[in-house]
Amino acid sequence: MTDFYPTRGTEEQIITRSDPIVYSKKNVGKYSLDNIAMSHYNDDGYIIFPNMFQSYEINQMLEEIKNMTQNERLFENEEFIKEPQSNELRTIFNQHKFSLLFDKVAKDPRILDKVQQLLGSDVYLHHSRINIKPAYEGKSFPWHSDFETWHAEDGLPRCRCLTAWIMLTDNTEFNGPLYLIPGSHKKFVSCKGFTPDNNYKTSLKNQEYGVPSLDAIRTLTENQDLAGAYGKSGTLVIHDGNIMHGSPDNISPFSRKNVFFVFNSIENKPTLPFGANKKRAEFLCLKDFTPLKSN
Amino acid sequence: MTDFYPTRGTEEQIITRSDPIVYSKKNVGKYSLDNIAMSHYNDDGYIIFPNMFQSYEINQMLEEIKNMTQNERLFENEEFIKEPQSNELRTIFNQHKFSLLFDKVAKDPRILDKVQQLLGSDVYLHHSRINIKPAYEGKSFPWHSDFETWHAEDGLPRCRCLTAWIMLTDNTEFNGPLYLIPGSHKKFVSCKGFTPDNNYKTSLKNQEYGVPSLDAIRTLTENQDLAGAYGKSGTLVIHDGNIMHGSPDNISPFSRKNVFFVFNSIENKPTLPFGANKKRAEFLCLKDFTPLKSN
Repeated sequence: MTDFYPTRGTEEQIITRSDPIVYSKKNVGKYSLDNIAMSHYNDDGYIIFPNMFQSYEINQMLEEIKNMTQNERLFENEEFIKEPQSNELRTIFNQHKFSLLFDKVAKDPRILDKVQQLLGSDVYLHHSRINIKPAYEGKSFPWHSDFETWHAEDGLPRCRCLTAWIMLTDNTEFNGPLYLIPGSHKKFVSCKGFTPDNNYKTSLKNQEYGVPSLDAIRTLTENQDLAGAYGKSGTLVIHDGNIMHGSPDNISPFSRKNVFFVFNSIENKPTLPFGANKKRAEFLCLKDFTPLKSN
Repeated sequence: MTDFYPTRGTEEQIITRSDPIVYSKKNVGKYSLDNIAMSHYNDDGYIIFPNMFQSYEINQMLEEIKNMTQNERLFENEEFIKEPQSNELRTIFNQHKFSLLFDKVAKDPRILDKVQQLLGSDVYLHHSRINIKPAYEGKSFPWHSDFETWHAEDGLPRCRCLTAWIMLTDNTEFNGPLYLIPGSHKKFVSCKGFTPDNNYKTSLKNQEYGVPSLDAIRTLTENQDLAGAYGKSGTLVIHDGNIMHGSPDNISPFSRKNVFFVFNSIENKPTLPFGANKKRAEFLCLKDFTPLKSN
Protein backbone atom coordinates (compact mmCIF):
# COMPACT_ATOMS: atom_id res chain seq x y z
CA MET A 1 0.00 0.00 0.00
CA THR A 2 1.33 3.44 -0.96
CA ASP A 3 2.42 5.49 2.03
CA PHE A 4 1.31 9.07 1.41
CA TYR A 5 2.70 10.21 4.75
CA PRO A 6 6.09 8.57 5.35
CA THR A 7 7.38 9.43 8.84
CA ARG A 8 9.76 8.32 11.62
CA GLY A 9 12.70 8.24 9.22
CA THR A 10 16.18 9.70 9.25
CA GLU A 11 15.20 13.28 8.43
CA GLU A 12 12.39 15.61 9.31
CA GLN A 13 10.39 16.85 6.31
CA ILE A 14 7.32 18.91 5.72
CA ILE A 15 4.98 17.30 3.16
CA THR A 16 1.81 18.71 1.66
CA ARG A 17 -1.36 16.93 2.70
CA SER A 18 -2.73 14.83 -0.13
CA ASP A 19 -6.17 14.24 1.35
CA PRO A 20 -9.27 16.43 1.47
CA ILE A 21 -10.13 18.22 4.72
CA VAL A 22 -13.88 18.44 4.25
CA TYR A 23 -14.90 15.19 2.56
CA SER A 24 -18.52 16.10 1.95
CA LYS A 25 -20.63 19.23 2.20
CA LYS A 26 -23.86 17.26 2.30
CA ASN A 27 -26.09 17.90 5.29
CA VAL A 28 -26.32 14.77 7.38
CA GLY A 29 -28.76 16.03 9.99
CA LYS A 30 -29.97 19.13 11.69
CA TYR A 31 -26.64 19.65 13.47
CA SER A 32 -24.50 19.60 10.33
CA LEU A 33 -22.26 22.55 9.54
CA ASP A 34 -23.30 25.41 7.31
CA ASN A 35 -21.02 26.65 4.53
CA ILE A 36 -19.37 29.31 6.65
CA ALA A 37 -18.49 26.85 9.40
CA MET A 38 -17.18 24.35 6.87
CA SER A 39 -15.05 27.00 5.25
CA HIS A 40 -13.57 27.92 8.67
CA TYR A 41 -12.84 24.28 9.36
CA ASN A 42 -11.24 23.88 5.97
CA ASP A 43 -8.97 26.93 6.45
CA ASP A 44 -8.11 26.63 10.15
CA GLY A 45 -8.41 22.91 10.75
CA TYR A 46 -10.63 23.35 13.78
CA ILE A 47 -13.84 24.94 14.90
CA ILE A 48 -15.20 25.90 18.31
CA PHE A 49 -18.91 25.69 19.21
CA PRO A 50 -19.72 27.45 22.49
CA ASN A 51 -22.70 26.33 24.60
CA MET A 52 -23.16 23.09 22.69
CA PHE A 53 -23.82 21.10 25.87
CA GLN A 54 -25.90 22.34 28.77
CA SER A 55 -24.67 22.48 32.32
CA TYR A 56 -26.85 19.60 33.52
CA GLU A 57 -25.28 17.43 30.81
CA ILE A 58 -21.78 18.51 31.80
CA ASN A 59 -22.57 17.78 35.45
CA GLN A 60 -23.73 14.29 34.52
CA MET A 61 -20.45 13.66 32.71
CA LEU A 62 -18.38 14.99 35.63
CA GLU A 63 -20.33 12.80 38.02
CA GLU A 64 -19.73 9.81 35.76
CA ILE A 65 -15.97 10.47 35.75
CA LYS A 66 -15.97 10.76 39.51
CA ASN A 67 -17.64 7.39 39.76
CA MET A 68 -15.17 5.88 37.31
CA THR A 69 -12.12 7.16 39.21
CA GLN A 70 -13.52 5.97 42.51
CA ASN A 71 -13.94 2.48 41.15
CA GLU A 72 -10.78 0.67 42.24
CA ARG A 73 -11.14 -2.13 39.75
CA LEU A 74 -11.32 0.31 36.83
CA PHE A 75 -8.46 2.43 38.16
CA GLU A 76 -5.96 -0.42 37.75
CA ASN A 77 -6.94 -0.88 34.11
CA GLU A 78 -4.37 -0.04 31.40
CA GLU A 79 -6.81 2.52 30.01
CA PHE A 80 -6.30 4.59 33.16
CA ILE A 81 -3.09 6.61 32.72
CA LYS A 82 -1.44 8.43 35.62
CA GLU A 83 0.79 11.55 35.83
CA PRO A 84 4.54 10.75 35.49
CA GLN A 85 5.42 12.12 38.94
CA SER A 86 2.35 12.16 41.17
CA ASN A 87 0.47 9.04 40.04
CA GLU A 88 -2.60 11.25 39.79
CA LEU A 89 -5.05 10.26 37.06
CA ARG A 90 -4.29 12.05 33.81
CA THR A 91 -6.22 10.17 31.15
CA ILE A 92 -8.95 7.59 30.89
CA PHE A 93 -9.13 5.86 27.53
CA ASN A 94 -12.32 4.55 25.95
CA GLN A 95 -14.75 5.93 28.46
CA HIS A 96 -17.47 4.99 26.00
CA LYS A 97 -16.72 1.35 26.77
CA PHE A 98 -16.87 1.80 30.54
CA SER A 99 -19.85 4.11 30.63
CA LEU A 100 -23.24 4.05 28.96
CA LEU A 101 -23.44 7.80 29.35
CA PHE A 102 -20.26 8.38 27.34
CA ASP A 103 -21.32 5.78 24.78
CA LYS A 104 -24.41 7.91 24.28
CA VAL A 105 -22.42 11.15 24.07
CA ALA A 106 -20.26 9.64 21.30
CA LYS A 107 -23.42 9.15 19.23
CA ASP A 108 -24.99 12.50 20.07
CA PRO A 109 -26.26 14.07 16.82
CA ARG A 110 -24.75 17.42 17.87
CA ILE A 111 -21.44 15.67 17.30
CA LEU A 112 -22.16 12.88 14.86
CA ASP A 113 -24.02 15.01 12.31
CA LYS A 114 -20.92 17.18 11.96
CA VAL A 115 -18.43 14.33 11.97
CA GLN A 116 -20.20 12.22 9.33
CA GLN A 117 -20.47 15.31 7.14
CA LEU A 118 -16.81 16.32 7.48
CA LEU A 119 -15.51 12.80 6.93
CA GLY A 120 -18.07 12.13 4.18
CA SER A 121 -18.95 8.62 5.29
CA ASP A 122 -20.03 6.50 8.15
CA VAL A 123 -17.60 6.67 11.06
CA TYR A 124 -16.49 4.60 14.03
CA LEU A 125 -14.45 5.39 17.15
CA HIS A 126 -10.69 4.93 16.77
CA HIS A 127 -10.61 5.53 20.50
CA SER A 128 -11.92 7.99 23.05
CA ARG A 129 -10.35 9.56 26.09
CA ILE A 130 -10.83 11.90 29.01
CA ASN A 131 -7.93 14.22 29.77
CA ILE A 132 -7.54 15.66 33.22
CA LYS A 133 -4.92 18.36 33.62
CA PRO A 134 -4.87 18.89 37.36
CA ALA A 135 -4.63 22.35 38.90
CA TYR A 136 -1.15 23.47 39.88
CA GLU A 137 0.69 20.40 38.62
CA GLY A 138 -0.69 19.30 35.24
CA LYS A 139 2.21 18.86 32.88
CA SER A 140 2.70 20.27 29.40
CA PHE A 141 2.40 18.22 26.24
CA PRO A 142 4.65 18.94 23.27
CA TRP A 143 3.54 19.86 19.77
CA HIS A 144 2.29 16.96 17.70
CA SER A 145 -0.18 15.88 15.05
CA ASP A 146 -2.39 13.06 16.30
CA PHE A 147 -2.64 11.64 12.80
CA GLU A 148 1.14 11.34 12.59
CA THR A 149 0.98 8.83 15.45
CA TRP A 150 -2.19 7.12 14.24
CA HIS A 151 -0.59 6.67 10.81
CA ALA A 152 2.86 5.66 12.05
CA GLU A 153 1.88 3.47 14.97
CA ASP A 154 -1.74 2.41 14.30
CA GLY A 155 -1.70 2.18 10.50
CA LEU A 156 -4.48 4.63 9.57
CA PRO A 157 -3.70 5.01 5.84
CA ARG A 158 -5.21 8.40 5.06
CA CYS A 159 -6.00 11.54 6.93
CA ARG A 160 -9.70 10.98 7.20
CA CYS A 161 -10.13 11.23 10.94
CA LEU A 162 -10.79 13.96 13.47
CA THR A 163 -11.32 14.60 17.13
CA ALA A 164 -14.49 16.03 18.63
CA TRP A 165 -14.12 17.09 22.23
CA ILE A 166 -16.20 18.66 24.94
CA MET A 167 -14.96 21.01 27.64
CA LEU A 168 -16.10 19.73 31.03
CA THR A 169 -14.46 22.68 32.80
CA ASP A 170 -13.65 26.11 31.45
CA ASN A 171 -10.56 26.05 29.26
CA THR A 172 -8.79 29.37 29.71
CA GLU A 173 -5.46 30.87 28.76
CA PHE A 174 -4.31 29.97 32.29
CA ASN A 175 -5.10 26.29 32.87
CA GLY A 176 -2.91 24.56 30.33
CA PRO A 177 -5.20 24.91 27.31
CA LEU A 178 -4.75 23.39 23.89
CA TYR A 179 -2.73 25.62 21.59
CA LEU A 180 -3.32 25.06 17.88
CA ILE A 181 -1.52 26.19 14.75
CA PRO A 182 -4.35 27.15 12.40
CA GLY A 183 -3.71 25.86 8.89
CA SER A 184 -1.09 23.35 10.00
CA HIS A 185 -3.46 20.50 9.09
CA LYS A 186 -2.61 21.20 5.44
CA LYS A 187 1.00 20.16 6.00
CA PHE A 188 2.27 16.86 7.32
CA VAL A 189 5.42 16.98 9.40
CA SER A 190 7.27 13.77 8.70
CA CYS A 191 9.10 13.28 11.98
CA LYS A 192 12.65 12.13 12.55
CA GLY A 193 13.45 9.07 14.63
CA PHE A 194 12.62 5.38 14.44
CA THR A 195 9.80 4.32 16.74
CA PRO A 196 10.94 2.01 19.53
CA ASP A 197 8.76 -1.01 20.30
CA ASN A 198 6.12 -0.34 22.95
CA ASN A 199 6.68 3.40 22.50
CA TYR A 200 3.06 4.03 23.49
CA LYS A 201 3.74 2.94 27.06
CA THR A 202 5.87 6.03 27.62
CA SER A 203 4.50 8.32 24.87
CA LEU A 204 1.14 8.66 26.59
CA LYS A 205 2.96 10.30 29.46
CA ASN A 206 5.91 11.94 27.71
CA GLN A 207 5.82 11.97 23.94
CA GLU A 208 9.31 11.76 22.42
CA TYR A 209 8.70 10.31 18.95
CA GLY A 210 6.47 12.06 16.45
CA VAL A 211 7.48 15.40 17.94
CA PRO A 212 8.43 18.06 15.37
CA SER A 213 11.53 20.19 15.85
CA LEU A 214 11.45 23.86 16.76
CA ASP A 215 12.38 24.57 13.13
CA ALA A 216 9.27 22.76 11.89
CA ILE A 217 7.05 24.65 14.33
CA ARG A 218 8.69 27.90 13.20
CA THR A 219 7.93 27.03 9.58
CA LEU A 220 4.29 26.30 10.38
CA THR A 221 3.94 29.60 12.26
CA GLU A 222 5.85 31.75 9.80
CA ASN A 223 2.80 33.74 8.73
CA GLN A 224 0.42 32.33 11.26
CA ASP A 225 -0.43 33.26 14.84
CA LEU A 226 -1.07 30.55 17.37
CA ALA A 227 -4.61 30.02 18.61
CA GLY A 228 -5.90 28.83 21.96
CA ALA A 229 -8.89 26.52 22.27
CA TYR A 230 -10.66 28.52 24.97
CA GLY A 231 -14.22 28.24 26.08
CA LYS A 232 -16.65 27.70 28.90
CA SER A 233 -17.59 24.22 29.99
CA GLY A 234 -20.10 22.85 27.51
CA THR A 235 -18.09 24.05 24.52
CA LEU A 236 -17.58 21.56 21.68
CA VAL A 237 -14.40 21.63 19.60
CA ILE A 238 -13.77 19.66 16.43
CA HIS A 239 -10.25 19.52 15.10
CA ASP A 240 -8.74 17.77 12.12
CA GLY A 241 -6.64 14.70 12.94
CA ASN A 242 -3.54 16.31 11.46
CA ILE A 243 -3.65 19.75 13.08
CA MET A 244 -0.51 20.58 15.04
CA HIS A 245 -1.26 21.18 18.70
CA GLY A 246 0.28 21.11 22.14
CA SER A 247 -0.39 22.47 25.60
CA PRO A 248 1.61 24.15 28.35
CA ASP A 249 1.52 22.99 31.94
CA ASN A 250 -1.28 24.02 34.23
CA ILE A 251 0.07 26.14 37.09
CA SER A 252 -3.34 27.67 37.73
CA PRO A 253 -5.55 26.63 40.65
CA PHE A 254 -8.17 25.41 38.17
CA SER A 255 -8.20 21.85 36.86
CA ARG A 256 -8.93 21.33 33.20
CA LYS A 257 -11.06 18.35 32.14
CA ASN A 258 -12.00 17.53 28.57
CA VAL A 259 -13.60 14.51 26.96
CA PHE A 260 -12.35 13.48 23.50
CA PHE A 261 -13.81 11.22 20.83
CA VAL A 262 -11.59 10.27 17.91
CA PHE A 263 -13.61 9.41 14.84
CA ASN A 264 -12.26 7.64 11.79
CA SER A 265 -13.98 7.02 8.47
CA ILE A 266 -15.02 3.39 7.96
CA GLU A 267 -13.29 3.78 4.58
CA ASN A 268 -9.99 4.39 6.36
CA LYS A 269 -9.62 1.29 8.53
CA PRO A 270 -6.21 0.63 10.04
CA THR A 271 -3.72 -1.53 8.15
CA LEU A 272 -0.20 -2.26 9.35
CA PRO A 273 1.70 0.60 11.04
CA PHE A 274 3.53 2.85 8.56
CA GLY A 275 6.28 3.94 10.94
CA ALA A 276 6.69 1.28 13.60
CA ASN A 277 7.44 -2.43 13.83
CA LYS A 278 4.57 -3.21 16.12
CA LYS A 279 1.04 -1.92 16.49
CA ARG A 280 0.14 -0.06 19.63
CA ALA A 281 -2.05 -1.70 22.21
CA GLU A 282 -5.56 -2.60 21.14
CA PHE A 283 -7.17 0.02 23.39
CA LEU A 284 -5.53 2.83 21.39
CA CYS A 285 -6.69 1.51 18.04
CA LEU A 286 -10.11 -0.04 18.42
CA LYS A 287 -11.30 -2.63 15.95
CA ASP A 288 -15.04 -2.24 16.23
CA PHE A 289 -15.78 -0.77 12.82
CA THR A 290 -19.56 -0.85 13.22
CA PRO A 291 -20.81 2.49 11.90
CA LEU A 292 -22.07 4.73 14.66
CA LYS A 293 -25.71 5.73 14.46
CA SER A 294 -27.10 8.91 16.00
CA ASN A 295 -29.08 8.56 19.20
CA MET B 1 13.63 43.91 65.11
CA THR B 2 9.94 43.02 64.84
CA ASP B 3 9.18 40.59 62.05
CA PHE B 4 5.96 41.70 60.43
CA TYR B 5 6.12 38.88 57.90
CA PRO B 6 7.23 35.67 59.61
CA THR B 7 7.72 32.89 57.05
CA ARG B 8 9.46 29.53 56.40
CA GLY B 9 8.01 28.06 59.55
CA THR B 10 6.13 24.88 60.35
CA GLU B 11 2.76 25.96 58.95
CA GLU B 12 1.54 27.95 55.99
CA GLN B 13 -0.47 31.03 56.93
CA ILE B 14 -2.02 33.95 55.12
CA ILE B 15 -1.26 37.25 56.87
CA THR B 16 -2.61 40.70 56.03
CA ARG B 17 -0.01 43.12 54.71
CA SER B 18 0.87 45.72 57.29
CA ASP B 19 2.62 48.13 54.93
CA PRO B 20 1.26 50.72 52.52
CA ILE B 21 1.21 49.92 48.81
CA VAL B 22 1.47 53.46 47.47
CA TYR B 23 3.80 55.30 49.84
CA SER B 24 3.36 58.74 48.36
CA LYS B 25 1.07 60.34 45.82
CA LYS B 26 3.42 63.27 45.27
CA ASN B 27 4.50 63.86 41.70
CA VAL B 28 8.22 63.23 41.39
CA GLY B 29 8.65 64.14 37.73
CA LYS B 30 6.82 64.29 34.48
CA TYR B 31 6.51 60.49 34.26
CA SER B 32 4.87 60.05 37.66
CA LEU B 33 1.52 58.28 37.89
CA ASP B 34 -1.81 60.09 37.89
CA ASN B 35 -4.47 59.30 40.46
CA ILE B 36 -6.21 56.74 38.28
CA ALA B 37 -3.02 54.80 37.66
CA MET B 38 -2.10 54.93 41.34
CA SER B 39 -5.51 53.64 42.29
CA HIS B 40 -5.14 50.73 39.83
CA TYR B 41 -1.73 49.94 41.26
CA ASN B 42 -3.09 50.06 44.77
CA ASP B 43 -5.99 47.71 43.97
CA ASP B 44 -4.32 45.27 41.58
CA GLY B 45 -0.69 45.43 42.68
CA TYR B 46 0.59 45.97 39.16
CA ILE B 47 0.20 48.24 36.20
CA ILE B 48 1.03 47.85 32.50
CA PHE B 49 2.22 50.74 30.32
CA PRO B 50 2.19 49.87 26.61
CA ASN B 51 4.59 51.61 24.21
CA MET B 52 6.76 53.04 26.98
CA PHE B 53 9.99 52.27 25.12
CA GLN B 54 10.47 52.74 21.42
CA SER B 55 11.64 50.00 19.09
CA TYR B 56 15.08 51.51 18.54
CA GLU B 57 15.59 51.46 22.32
CA ILE B 58 14.45 47.84 22.54
CA ASN B 59 16.78 46.90 19.68
CA GLN B 60 19.69 48.53 21.51
CA MET B 61 18.92 46.46 24.60
CA LEU B 62 18.60 43.24 22.61
CA GLU B 63 21.90 43.97 20.90
CA GLU B 64 23.51 44.61 24.30
CA ILE B 65 22.25 41.25 25.61
CA LYS B 66 23.59 39.51 22.52
CA ASN B 67 27.00 41.03 23.16
CA MET B 68 26.86 40.03 26.82
CA THR B 69 26.00 36.41 26.05
CA GLN B 70 28.70 36.18 23.41
CA ASN B 71 31.31 37.35 25.90
CA GLU B 72 32.82 34.11 27.20
CA ARG B 73 34.32 35.73 30.27
CA LEU B 74 30.95 37.10 31.37
CA PHE B 75 29.13 33.85 30.58
CA GLU B 76 31.08 31.96 33.26
CA ASN B 77 30.09 34.52 35.89
CA GLU B 78 27.77 33.42 38.74
CA GLU B 79 25.31 36.11 37.62
CA PHE B 80 24.73 34.11 34.43
CA ILE B 81 22.18 31.37 35.23
CA LYS B 82 21.53 28.48 32.83
CA GLU B 83 18.46 26.28 32.19
CA PRO B 84 18.36 23.14 34.40
CA GLN B 85 18.46 20.71 31.46
CA SER B 86 19.90 22.41 28.42
CA ASN B 87 22.52 24.74 29.92
CA GLU B 88 20.98 27.48 27.79
CA LEU B 89 21.12 30.95 29.34
CA ARG B 90 18.03 31.68 31.37
CA THR B 91 18.89 34.70 33.49
CA ILE B 92 21.54 37.38 33.70
CA PHE B 93 21.68 39.16 37.04
CA ASN B 94 22.73 42.76 37.51
CA GLN B 95 22.99 43.69 33.88
CA HIS B 96 23.26 47.31 35.08
CA LYS B 97 26.69 46.45 36.45
CA PHE B 98 27.93 44.84 33.25
CA SER B 99 26.41 47.32 30.84
CA LEU B 100 26.35 51.11 30.73
CA LEU B 101 23.22 50.93 28.63
CA PHE B 102 21.30 48.99 31.29
CA ASP B 103 22.72 51.23 34.02
CA LYS B 104 21.15 54.12 32.13
CA VAL B 105 17.83 52.29 31.67
CA ALA B 106 17.63 51.71 35.44
CA LYS B 107 17.72 55.49 35.93
CA ASP B 108 15.39 56.34 33.08
CA PRO B 109 12.84 58.87 34.34
CA ARG B 110 10.04 56.91 32.66
CA ILE B 111 10.77 54.30 35.29
CA LEU B 112 12.35 56.19 38.18
CA ASP B 113 9.70 58.93 38.42
CA LYS B 114 7.09 56.24 39.02
CA VAL B 115 9.19 54.15 41.36
CA GLN B 116 10.23 57.00 43.63
CA GLN B 117 6.63 58.13 43.82
CA LEU B 118 5.24 54.67 44.66
CA LEU B 119 7.91 53.92 47.26
CA GLY B 120 7.77 57.51 48.61
CA SER B 121 11.51 57.91 48.98
CA ASP B 122 14.82 57.65 47.23
CA VAL B 123 15.46 54.18 45.92
CA TYR B 124 18.37 51.91 45.02
CA LEU B 125 18.64 48.64 43.10
CA HIS B 126 18.22 45.52 45.21
CA HIS B 127 19.27 43.69 42.04
CA SER B 128 18.39 43.58 38.38
CA ARG B 129 18.02 40.72 35.94
CA ILE B 130 17.25 39.71 32.40
CA ASN B 131 15.00 36.69 32.00
CA ILE B 132 15.12 34.68 28.81
CA LYS B 133 12.45 32.06 28.39
CA PRO B 134 13.56 30.26 25.27
CA ALA B 135 11.12 29.19 22.59
CA TYR B 136 9.93 25.59 22.78
CA GLU B 137 11.82 24.68 25.97
CA GLY B 138 11.59 27.51 28.51
CA LYS B 139 10.46 26.03 31.80
CA SER B 140 7.64 27.12 34.06
CA PHE B 141 8.17 28.93 37.34
CA PRO B 142 5.88 28.25 40.29
CA TRP B 143 3.75 30.81 42.12
CA HIS B 144 5.67 33.00 44.53
CA SER B 145 5.93 36.46 46.05
CA ASP B 146 9.37 37.98 45.41
CA PHE B 147 9.17 39.87 48.68
CA GLU B 148 8.70 36.62 50.58
CA THR B 149 12.17 35.57 49.43
CA TRP B 150 13.73 39.01 49.82
CA HIS B 151 12.39 39.18 53.37
CA ALA B 152 13.21 35.59 54.34
CA GLU B 153 16.57 35.24 52.65
CA ASP B 154 17.86 38.80 52.10
CA GLY B 155 16.45 40.54 55.18
CA LEU B 156 14.37 43.31 53.62
CA PRO B 157 12.31 44.30 56.68
CA ARG B 158 9.21 45.86 55.11
CA CYS B 159 7.34 45.53 51.88
CA ARG B 160 8.62 48.73 50.33
CA CYS B 161 10.05 47.38 47.13
CA LEU B 162 8.82 46.69 43.64
CA THR B 163 9.89 45.47 40.25
CA ALA B 164 9.81 47.51 37.06
CA TRP B 165 10.33 45.50 33.92
CA ILE B 166 10.44 46.03 30.20
CA MET B 167 9.28 43.58 27.55
CA LEU B 168 12.04 43.10 25.01
CA THR B 169 9.91 40.70 22.98
CA ASP B 170 6.16 40.44 22.82
CA ASN B 171 4.73 38.70 25.88
CA THR B 172 1.68 36.76 24.76
CA GLU B 173 -0.62 34.16 26.25
CA PHE B 174 1.47 31.56 24.40
CA ASN B 175 5.12 32.18 25.28
CA GLY B 176 5.20 31.48 28.99
CA PRO B 177 4.00 34.87 30.21
CA LEU B 178 3.82 36.12 33.77
CA TYR B 179 0.51 35.26 35.40
CA LEU B 180 -0.48 37.52 38.30
CA ILE B 181 -3.12 37.30 41.00
CA PRO B 182 -4.48 40.86 41.18
CA GLY B 183 -4.93 41.96 44.78
CA SER B 184 -2.67 39.24 46.18
CA HIS B 185 -0.11 41.89 47.19
CA LYS B 186 -2.43 42.79 50.09
CA LYS B 187 -1.91 39.36 51.66
CA PHE B 188 1.36 37.78 52.67
CA VAL B 189 1.58 34.02 52.33
CA SER B 190 3.82 32.85 55.14
CA CYS B 191 5.33 29.75 53.59
CA LYS B 192 5.97 26.39 55.17
CA GLY B 193 9.43 24.86 55.27
CA PHE B 194 12.77 25.85 56.76
CA THR B 195 15.18 27.33 54.25
CA PRO B 196 18.23 25.15 53.61
CA ASP B 197 21.62 26.89 53.45
CA ASN B 198 22.62 27.98 49.95
CA ASN B 199 19.01 27.53 48.83
CA TYR B 200 19.50 30.27 46.23
CA LYS B 201 21.86 28.07 44.23
CA THR B 202 18.99 25.79 43.30
CA SER B 203 16.03 28.16 43.80
CA LEU B 204 17.04 30.34 40.87
CA LYS B 205 16.48 27.30 38.66
CA ASN B 206 13.77 25.42 40.54
CA GLN B 207 12.14 27.23 43.43
CA GLU B 208 11.08 24.84 46.21
CA TYR B 209 10.99 27.03 49.32
CA GLY B 210 8.78 30.08 49.51
CA VAL B 211 6.26 28.36 47.26
CA PRO B 212 2.65 28.56 48.45
CA SER B 213 0.42 25.50 48.43
CA LEU B 214 -2.45 24.97 46.01
CA ASP B 215 -4.77 25.79 48.92
CA ALA B 216 -3.16 29.20 49.39
CA ILE B 217 -3.42 29.97 45.68
CA ARG B 218 -7.06 28.86 45.78
CA THR B 219 -7.71 31.24 48.67
CA LEU B 220 -6.09 34.14 46.83
CA THR B 221 -8.15 33.44 43.71
CA GLU B 222 -11.43 32.76 45.46
CA ASN B 223 -13.12 35.87 44.09
CA GLN B 224 -10.39 36.90 41.74
CA ASP B 225 -9.56 35.98 38.17
CA LEU B 226 -5.96 35.52 37.15
CA ALA B 227 -4.34 38.11 34.92
CA GLY B 228 -1.64 37.78 32.29
CA ALA B 229 1.07 40.40 31.83
CA TYR B 230 0.75 40.64 28.06
CA GLY B 231 2.07 43.31 25.79
CA LYS B 232 4.17 44.20 22.79
CA SER B 233 7.90 44.70 23.14
CA GLY B 234 8.48 48.14 24.61
CA THR B 235 5.80 47.66 27.27
CA LEU B 236 6.72 48.62 30.84
CA VAL B 237 5.22 46.73 33.79
CA ILE B 238 5.53 47.74 37.44
CA HIS B 239 4.48 45.21 40.05
CA ASP B 240 4.49 45.31 43.81
CA GLY B 241 7.20 43.22 45.49
CA ASN B 242 4.61 41.08 47.21
CA ILE B 243 2.25 40.26 44.34
CA MET B 244 1.80 36.54 43.76
CA HIS B 245 2.96 35.50 40.30
CA GLY B 246 4.22 32.56 38.32
CA SER B 247 4.60 31.50 34.72
CA PRO B 248 3.94 28.39 32.64
CA ASP B 249 6.51 26.88 30.33
CA ASN B 250 7.05 28.28 26.88
CA ILE B 251 6.16 25.66 24.27
CA SER B 252 5.67 28.33 21.60
CA PRO B 253 8.22 28.98 18.86
CA PHE B 254 8.69 32.52 20.24
CA SER B 255 11.29 33.31 22.87
CA ARG B 256 10.33 35.66 25.65
CA LYS B 257 12.88 38.17 26.92
CA ASN B 258 12.26 40.69 29.68
CA VAL B 259 14.55 43.00 31.64
CA PHE B 260 13.76 43.50 35.33
CA PHE B 261 14.91 46.11 37.83
CA VAL B 262 14.13 45.53 41.49
CA PHE B 263 13.94 48.78 43.43
CA ASN B 264 13.98 49.05 47.19
CA SER B 265 13.42 52.14 49.33
CA ILE B 266 16.61 53.45 50.95
CA GLU B 267 14.56 53.45 54.16
CA ASN B 268 14.18 49.67 53.88
CA LYS B 269 17.79 48.49 53.75
CA PRO B 270 18.41 44.79 54.34
CA THR B 271 19.10 43.56 57.87
CA LEU B 272 19.64 39.90 58.76
CA PRO B 273 17.48 37.32 56.95
CA PHE B 274 14.11 36.74 58.63
CA GLY B 275 13.69 33.16 57.44
CA ALA B 276 17.11 31.69 56.76
CA ASN B 277 20.37 31.10 58.60
CA LYS B 278 22.54 32.63 55.94
CA LYS B 279 22.15 35.52 53.56
CA ARG B 280 22.00 34.80 49.89
CA ALA B 281 24.94 35.63 47.67
CA GLU B 282 25.90 39.29 47.43
CA PHE B 283 24.80 39.57 43.79
CA LEU B 284 21.18 38.89 44.75
CA CYS B 285 21.12 41.52 47.49
CA LEU B 286 23.25 44.46 46.42
CA LYS B 287 24.71 46.76 49.04
CA ASP B 288 25.14 49.93 47.05
CA PHE B 289 22.52 52.10 48.71
CA THR B 290 23.41 55.26 46.80
CA PRO B 291 20.09 56.82 45.79
CA LEU B 292 19.49 56.58 42.08
CA LYS B 293 19.15 59.86 40.23
CA SER B 294 17.22 60.24 36.99
CA ASN B 295 19.23 60.54 33.81
